[in-house]
Amino acid sequence: MTPPLEPGRAEGSALERLAARLIAQRAFLAEAARRIAGIPGPVFEIGLGKGRTYDHLRRLLPDRAIYCFDREHHAPPEESPPAEFLVLGEIQETLPALAARIGAKAALAHCDIGTRKPERDMAFARYLAAALPAHMAQGAIILGDRPMESPRLAPLPAPDFARPDGIAAWPYYLYRVTTV
Amino acid sequence: MTPPLEPGRAEGSALERLAARLIAQRAFLAEAARRIAGIPGPVFEIGLGKGRTYDHLRRLLPDRAIYCFDREHHAPPEESPPAEFLVLGEIQETLPALAARIGAKAALAHCDIGTRKPERDMAFARYLAAALPAHMAQGAIILGDRPMESPRLAPLPAPDFARPDGIAAWPYYLYRVTTV
Repeated sequence: MTPPLEPGRAEGSALERLAARLIAQRAFLAEAARRIAGIPGPVFEIGLGKGRTYDHLRRLLPDRAIYCFDREHHAPPEESPPAEFLVLGEIQETLPALAARIGAKAALAHCDIGTRKPERDMAFARYLAAALPAHMAQGAIILGDRPMESPRLAPLPAPDFARPDGIAAWPYYLYRVTTV
Repeated sequence: MTPPLEPGRAEGSALERLAARLIAQRAFLAEAARRIAGIPGPVFEIGLGKGRTYDHLRRLLPDRAIYCFDREHHAPPEESPPAEFLVLGEIQETLPALAARIGAKAALAHCDIGTRKPERDMAFARYLAAALPAHMAQGAIILGDRPMESPRLAPLPAPDFARPDGIAAWPYYLYRVTTV
């Protein structure tokens, strides 16, 4: 009765793919939080979206300032940061301006940028890989849902984490910021 | 640095709550699919939303007609049913009209109706508990994210399912349609 699925969508239902993504995010964020324990500095949440990961980050890292970047503000008030931590606009303008304003290098940047437009996502990931390290502390962590390449980003191994049977290991990427 | 959380939101982050809900939905839908194996009839997906559960249902029950109800159509094309299975409008009008049109009783109804407005959700659950059984086969299954009460709905036990540490058992409800 139901039309056949398109090729390439066999890796689970949309429900299972979202569950896989959330479970991976949670494990990678916990690993990132452990790795920045000795590194002072704020957090950059790049792609506030509906604020779910912001809500997770503020519980995981209650003593950090968390700056949330997005083009527009779509998160409900319950999952939005205070106004002074909300940075709206094109990141190519807002990231350098915010970095200049706060005068501190970030300890963590989480880049949840994936959409259904892979070419645009890859271009955005290239921009972040090139631009972010200058605004981050030595040894800081960058993680996200798209691979990033830069001489200043050293890939780190994925953490181990439990998944229910049938929930895939969703691809997520973790890097340490180094000097060249 | 981060303002304190409101009381009553200690059951996990928004990320964890969504993961908990998806994992529970998946387990309850699998249980419902097992329970209707011998009962012919279509499926009613009440609350298409973004179509994630529809996408899951069409993989879980590929031989069933799945009618998707919603006030408005917000699902992307990839997770939307063919037009003849999309039923838009107020359910108080569309449910009896669709039931009369197809002339078959449903084997399964999934009611994912929760919003952030608990009183409206409870009123909707009361309507569905009263109206759905007349359009469903004897022994059919109704499940959803809000409790339903009716002399024609017999509560069934929750299935067992694995959850990652720290992901709560999200409340979900399963009923068998009986005669009074």
